[in-house]
Amino acid sequence: MRELTEPFSSRLGGTTGLAPYEGKVERHLSDLRGCFLNSDLVEQMLSEGKNPKIYEVYEIPQEPNTGLLSIGATVIYPGKIGDEYYFTKGHFHQKEPRAEIYIGIEGEGRILIQNRSGESTYFQIKPNVLVYIPPQSAHRSINTGSNRLVFLAIYPSDAGHDYKGIEDRGFAKIVVEKDGNPVIEDNPKYIKTS
Amino acid sequence: MRELTEPFSSRLGGTTGLAPYEGKVERHLSDLRGCFLNSDLVEQMLSEGKNPKIYEVYEIPQEPNTGLLSIGATVIYPGKIGDEYYFTKGHFHQKEPRAEIYIGIEGEGRILIQNRSGESTYFQIKPNVLVYIPPQSAHRSINTGSNRLVFLAIYPSDAGHDYKGIEDRGFAKIVVEKDGNPVIEDNPKYIKTS
Repeated sequence: MRELTEPFSSRLGGTTGLAPYEGKVERHLSDLRGCFLNSDLVEQMLSEGKNPKIYEVYEIPQEPNTGLLSIGATVIYPGKIGDEYYFTKGHFHQKEPRAEIYIGIEGEGRILIQNRSGESTYFQIKPNVLVYIPPQSAHRSINTGSNRLVFLAIYPSDAGHDYKGIEDRGFAKIVVEKDGNPVIEDNPKYIKTS
Repeated sequence: MRELTEPFSSRLGGTTGLAPYEGKVERHLSDLRGCFLNSDLVEQMLSEGKNPKIYEVYEIPQEPNTGLLSIGATVIYPGKIGDEYYFTKGHFHQKEPRAEIYIGIEGEGRILIQNRSGESTYFQIKPNVLVYIPPQSAHRSINTGSNRLVFLAIYPSDAGHDYKGIEDRGFAKIVVEKDGNPVIEDNPKYIKTS
């Protein structure tokens, strides 16, 4: 963790999306067990030793003190599980209200945003597009392209991650490929009331 | 002001740096009276009716509640007062600790960062470069190029602006043109102890 008083500069783009960075997180298919619609296929792949890397996050975190801002560049690899594009696990913030801002760096995708009542919307993520994620909103990013999707996230460093709040119900929408194009559909496994 | 629960998307770049945006602030030379080193020249210009636009800020503000993030794109026009490049007024945050993040969009410049003890540093602002401004740090941006300097700022919406804290002392450094190049020098008008 950095000193509160230390300014710094970092470059956007390149392999890691952010350079220099301080920490790295990798998520493989096994970390997203239960997230994809076709869970039978996921279990089959894992039993065959196929555990592809789905995404990485390169971070410059700050101490979790109110008023500080953490930074992370997420790299989602291209790929699908069945017809469903690779995505991030998705989370609410643990501390609320805490907003977040995404900025596309490379590639193209979607972000699903879903509030605690289950109302959801989505936006495109692509270079030079900024998306504002309001408090109390689970957010999941999806790589709908054939290359890497890279985006920057800026969020209050005390926000925290609440994965459970969305794991239990799932997202109301899924993003699947139909005739070569990304389509947003209702998630048949979505649990409307928790 | 937007509803807390409303997500949105905005495009970076173009004339306004951010589109769509919600509010616009314009700063002319008369708004920066006393900020430039050559105050005689400033007064002379103003008395002759010369009051150039120095910069504009295109904003998407949020309610000043802890955990929300406001967004602004600043456009600094190219120009100098004497040898000193056009710059923003510069401010501390009113509420502390509150950090801020800058991301270059177009053009090239510098950002001066100065803490409450008067210690200062600077970074380059240019496309795809991010600068982290820690709490308790006055920050001023300078357009050292011959075209517009455009950058994005993301900050906690409850940060507020404290212009007075830096107006009284000034910045310890100035950015001037020497032989066609930007040079950082000590500000002879800087008041070391307030």
